[in-house]
Amino acid sequence: MKRKSQVESRRVSLAALSLPHGKRARLWRLLHAHGPRNGTLLVLPLDQGLEHGPTDFFPNPDALDTDFQFRLALEGQYSAIALGIGLAEKYMAEYAGQVPLILKLNGKTNIPDDAEAASPLFAGVEDAVRLGADAVGFTLYLGSPRQEADILQFRHVRQECERYGMPIVMWAYPRGRAIEVKGGKGTLFAQDYAARVAEELGADVVKLHEPTEDNERCPEPYRSLRESPPDRLRRVVRSAGKVMVLFSGGIKQDDDARVLEKVSLYMECGATGVMFGRNMWLRPFDEALALSQKVHEIMARHSSPDYS
Amino acid sequence: MKRKSQVESRRVSLAALSLPHGKRARLWRLLHAHGPRNGTLLVLPLDQGLEHGPTDFFPNPDALDTDFQFRLALEGQYSAIALGIGLAEKYMAEYAGQVPLILKLNGKTNIPDDAEAASPLFAGVEDAVRLGADAVGFTLYLGSPRQEADILQFRHVRQECERYGMPIVMWAYPRGRAIEVKGGKGTLFAQDYAARVAEELGADVVKLHEPTEDNERCPEPYRSLRESPPDRLRRVVRSAGKVMVLFSGGIKQDDDARVLEKVSLYMECGATGVMFGRNMWLRPFDEALALSQKVHEIMARHSSPDYS
Amino acid sequence: MKRKSQVESRRVSLAALSLPHGKRARLWRLLHAHGPRNGTLLVLPLDQGLEHGPTDFFPNPDALDTDFQFRLALEGQYSAIALGIGLAEKYMAEYAGQVPLILKLNGKTNIPDDAEAASPLFAGVEDAVRLGADAVGFTLYLGSPRQEADILQFRHVRQECERYGMPIVMWAYPRGRAIEVKGGKGTLFAQDYAARVAEELGADVVKLHEPTEDNERCPEPYRSLRESPPDRLRRVVRSAGKVMVLFSGGIKQDDDARVLEKVSLYMECGATGVMFGRNMWLRPFDEALALSQKVHEIMARHSSPDYS
Amino acid sequence: MKRKSQVESRRVSLAALSLPHGKRARLWRLLHAHGPRNGTLLVLPLDQGLEHGPTDFFPNPDALDTDFQFRLALEGQYSAIALGIGLAEKYMAEYAGQVPLILKLNGKTNIPDDAEAASPLFAGVEDAVRLGADAVGFTLYLGSPRQEADILQFRHVRQECERYGMPIVMWAYPRGRAIEVKGGKGTLFAQDYAARVAEELGADVVKLHEPTEDNERCPEPYRSLRESPPDRLRRVVRSAGKVMVLFSGGIKQDDDARVLEKVSLYMECGATGVMFGRNMWLRPFDEALALSQKVHEIMARHSSPDYS
Amino acid sequence: MKRKSQVESRRVSLAALSLPHGKRARLWRLLHAHGPRNGTLLVLPLDQGLEHGPTDFFPNPDALDTDFQFRLALEGQYSAIALGIGLAEKYMAEYAGQVPLILKLNGKTNIPDDAEAASPLFAGVEDAVRLGADAVGFTLYLGSPRQEADILQFRHVRQECERYGMPIVMWAYPRGRAIEVKGGKGTLFAQDYAARVAEELGADVVKLHEPTEDNERCPEPYRSLRESPPDRLRRVVRSAGKVMVLFSGGIKQDDDARVLEKVSLYMECGATGVMFGRNMWLRPFDEALALSQKVHEIMARHSSPDYS
Repeated sequence: MKRKSQVESRRVSLAALSLPHGKRARLWRLLHAHGPRNGTLLVLPLDQGLEHGPTDFFPNPDALDTDFQFRLALEGQYSAIALGIGLAEKYMAEYAGQVPLILKLNGKTNIPDDAEAASPLFAGVEDAVRLGADAVGFTLYLGSPRQEADILQFRHVRQECERYGMPIVMWAYPRGRAIEVKGGKGTLFAQDYAARVAEELGADVVKLHEPTEDNERCPEPYRSLRESPPDRLRRVVRSAGKVMVLFSGGIKQDDDARVLEKVSLYMECGATGVMFGRNMWLRPFDEALALSQKVHEIMARHSSPDYS
Repeated sequence: MKRKSQVESRRVSLAALSLPHGKRARLWRLLHAHGPRNGTLLVLPLDQGLEHGPTDFFPNPDALDTDFQFRLALEGQYSAIALGIGLAEKYMAEYAGQVPLILKLNGKTNIPDDAEAASPLFAGVEDAVRLGADAVGFTLYLGSPRQEADILQFRHVRQECERYGMPIVMWAYPRGRAIEVKGGKGTLFAQDYAARVAEELGADVVKLHEPTEDNERCPEPYRSLRESPPDRLRRVVRSAGKVMVLFSGGIKQDDDARVLEKVSLYMECGATGVMFGRNMWLRPFDEALALSQKVHEIMARHSSPDYS
Repeated sequence: MKRKSQVESRRVSLAALSLPHGKRARLWRLLHAHGPRNGTLLVLPLDQGLEHGPTDFFPNPDALDTDFQFRLALEGQYSAIALGIGLAEKYMAEYAGQVPLILKLNGKTNIPDDAEAASPLFAGVEDAVRLGADAVGFTLYLGSPRQEADILQFRHVRQECERYGMPIVMWAYPRGRAIEVKGGKGTLFAQDYAARVAEELGADVVKLHEPTEDNERCPEPYRSLRESPPDRLRRVVRSAGKVMVLFSGGIKQDDDARVLEKVSLYMECGATGVMFGRNMWLRPFDEALALSQKVHEIMARHSSPDYS
Repeated sequence: MKRKSQVESRRVSLAALSLPHGKRARLWRLLHAHGPRNGTLLVLPLDQGLEHGPTDFFPNPDALDTDFQFRLALEGQYSAIALGIGLAEKYMAEYAGQVPLILKLNGKTNIPDDAEAASPLFAGVEDAVRLGADAVGFTLYLGSPRQEADILQFRHVRQECERYGMPIVMWAYPRGRAIEVKGGKGTLFAQDYAARVAEELGADVVKLHEPTEDNERCPEPYRSLRESPPDRLRRVVRSAGKVMVLFSGGIKQDDDARVLEKVSLYMECGATGVMFGRNMWLRPFDEALALSQKVHEIMARHSSPDYS
Repeated sequence: MKRKSQVESRRVSLAALSLPHGKRARLWRLLHAHGPRNGTLLVLPLDQGLEHGPTDFFPNPDALDTDFQFRLALEGQYSAIALGIGLAEKYMAEYAGQVPLILKLNGKTNIPDDAEAASPLFAGVEDAVRLGADAVGFTLYLGSPRQEADILQFRHVRQECERYGMPIVMWAYPRGRAIEVKGGKGTLFAQDYAARVAEELGADVVKLHEPTEDNERCPEPYRSLRESPPDRLRRVVRSAGKVMVLFSGGIKQDDDARVLEKVSLYMECGATGVMFGRNMWLRPFDEALALSQKVHEIMARHSSPDYS
């Protein structure tokens, strides 16, 4: 198979989308009234306590107190904080209105393995409305043997969102026995498929991971594909179509420069933003704030087309 | 077993059906106000992004932008475009009213294998009504070990359609472990059964595949049957009774003449129309348009009985 | 074990049943206003297209057009035609009011095997009401490993029927892995149990099969039982209590005399009637009509007690 | 382990219970207006036709006609007859008001084995209300691998009963693979657990079996327990707390004296009553009546505390 | 891995929580109007009869009569009694208003093993409201292969609680095949995860067990952790965040001093209280009362921050 030339991709423009009023209003708040305020998104997620347990917090026990993340989101001027109902109910009071909320609706522990991964709803869209959230977060375990239940569950969420004008951020995670056989969850095949599924099923924003280089066990034409990291990123951004793409900041990375390079790369490749969890809140508060500031500087150079 | 003589079949006539008003109005739009406008159907489906992932789009990356297919449906005068809620919500705005919509309600990824195939609903009939669709599309995995869930799910869709006067296009796909044991999904046995099931369960239109020649592992009497391609086509059209049959255009075929021959053959054998996906939108736009035009010429020679 | 003396059984009398008005009205139409009109039932079922596929129609392709069966039901003066929603919706228009309808509510394909047989609902009691049906048909797979779902499903149907005054005809079919171990679905053990279950669960009419002679692998006391065919029939009729019994006409039987003998035997043993599918509609129309006429002559000699 | 001294137990007193009006009214009818009329219960169950099939009726075919049991319940002055919806609907007409009804709500065939026993609802509390029943009967398969579904199902029934003031008689049956491993369904361990579960989940009356002597494979402390039959009975009566206990009359026992001894024993040990099915209705009518009369004589000597 | 220094933790303050009125009112009753009345909790649970059967009561058969526990709760001045619907309905009458009720909503028998543990609801939040309960109790089997059903079920309970202002006490129990592989249910890993999950999912109070010392088969970083018992306790209290922690009194412990030491330790480490079941009600009534009194003396020294 011949080497593909560079793949094109464009950042999604809110102005160019045809959206119902409520959805547009909420997305506008996230894109233009908070965070970088230039049509990009900088999101602080905190679902690791449920997904991985307190394990993730060992490097920075202060982060076990959710107030840490709320303060970081506020002072670091994040577009939103993304967390579940229990944390939202207990810690949001003094930040309400100041830190937009993306209410994560489903989740699970990682105690059983992921062979048949499923992420049950532990909150509903009405909870999000009641809490004044500006979006809901939904994890879809793409390709899991339990995809049937997963997709049905997403339908109910989407239809409720339709009713309330609530945007959906989809954590589109390839997962389960079958994806492992086809190369694993981090491959370009998996992430590219995830991007498309997010658009097909009706997400407004999708969280993806930067695709790995390894295509060996993937189905064709991916197996034969040799693309540069930017091309891989552009490919998945393009496959997401009119869905805004957030790339994951991933596990903690001590080298700040490397982190910032990644942000630049993601934004250059058409991402609408980044989602920074452990890579931020596992740092001491001031360091996290300083790093957030540098991320803002990069984001400022990548306004959405609405600003160009 | 003695060779059967040629099987008879007739194209279904809308005028001869006894339908509730809403269903008739919507089918009339599809059959007489759009597309060939002579009681036949030329449908452009776009569910491959969910069903197969971006893989299918590699030969023509332009087609990843759903606007491509909407433009093709409009300029190529298709009877309708058939796609899911995410694509409809995001790309339909400027085509609304001009390109009739068949909203696909269910689907899945092909990451897990098809041994226990099930196609969960990711949208509902109310979504179709809200979007102004003229029909819904439903994939039934005939004969899957999960047929119980599948049929129950179809019931809910059908009853909602009854309520709203919404026609149902059934993708009647034999699938799953048990059909493989009985010869596979493409055999005459499988397609013929699919045609009948579509009628029994209450579809208005059914999408089928041209049956293959291989009957070896099928149950009798199919195993002993030796029929010509036209006879096989006529047989499944006849088994579909008063359900209008669309044959699939199948995977991309580079030889235009061969494609058009197939269309002629299908229409001669009593099909109401064809569903052309990859065979159209994997071609450069102008070529796809030109080919669509030639298909129109054939369809024009096969008006439904309502015009004779 | 000693040879049992002849088993007694009586035909059920509508007059002696204590029924809600709606149910009585509808049963009266079936028993006294159509068909033999003497309290017996002659029913024409057409669910084979879904249950077995077009295979069953090979001996008489004309029967693939459901109009064939409707005409036969009308001209052959059947008490009712029994078929599913798809066929009812599409073919009933010109027969409405003339041919009573038993709407079959559930069904499945025979592509997967019957080890865990389940028959999902593809229509509801409200569909039956809307279509003016005089009864609903429900297949219960007695003794299947999935009997839990089956019985729960029946409950919902029965409760809806209660609400609308709709009689229930139960196809009480022993099925699944466990019944095979206990001798198979056709044994006296299986059919006798089926008859009782129909009464226990609340059917009004039950369709059974003539029990076979083979009791070898059945549980006691059936294993040791040696009864004549009439005694076996009387036994299951008696076990059905106040539920009217219809015996199946079974697969096609070319010898007319043999068919008529069976009808006589069934009626003598207390059956309320017979259900003739393939044994009728696989014959050329005129032959089917002629045979139906002869069946009528027998039925005329077996009025229900309401007429004696 | 040292031999326990005699276990104490007391018969439950209706007067001492704190009940909502409707429940009290219905229990009062069962305890004081029918049957022995002294706060004890003599119940005639007829669910064997569904649970075991017609097999159980071979010794007395007359009993296949449910009128037999209704007459016996009436003339034998039973506190109530306990049977399912099908039999109630068809045979109760002339006994309504004279023979109180305990409507059995769930059941199954015994064709599949009991390794994963579950007893699906085939009727609801509203059916019981409509039929004028004075209680509902519910079979709980304690300890089955499917206990989750079972308990959820019971909740719905209990909540409906709460709403309508309907008492619940629980057939608390240890069942399934796991109980077999722990000694089997008839052991003191199993029956004692059953008694407690009935109280924990909210039954008003529980049907239990006399515990067997064999504790060998039971968990401790039961394994080491050596108790007399009366002590075992008193133990389970005590474990049932404020739930009234009915002991099962069990399979047919030809020796009348032995049957009556059992009744005396049960009543002396604190039971509120007995449930006599096959041990009554498998006898010729007059014998059953005579035996019932003798049971009444015993019951008369064991009034509930409300009468002392 | 280096030895962690002592872990910090604080008792949760009701005053510092942001709660809806109803929830606050009910928690206030539990924390300040009953029991120690200083913002701590002393709860008497009685769910063992369902969870373990009468086995648990052998050392003190008096405790089989639930009146024993109600009296103990009243005279021992417990903050609340926690039990299921059956016991509440039957024994609460004379204690209503005097002994606050935590209605346990779900439960199961321990007859099947816990490999796929699930705890079905046998009562609902409306039952709790009707009975005047001040909280509901919910068992979550964290990490069970059936966690999907478990979490979905919890969502419904939480949403109902939201609606009625009802606090939730979560029995957060790591359970099932997968947790066994990762070291077992009693490890610090398991209990720490449980504490966090309770907060993430939205509990108000969580019941935990004191973590064991054994980390050998746990995932890192727990495997390498060597912490003192107080540090382990403080860790889980900290992981529970703003959820109040109750530690279990565990199985019966004959040495009173040891029991009281544990209470002191728990309270010093930031627990809001203790839950004492068998360790209290398996003692003779007066001994239990005396021990309760001593526990009160300890609790009195550990007021919540609201009192400092």
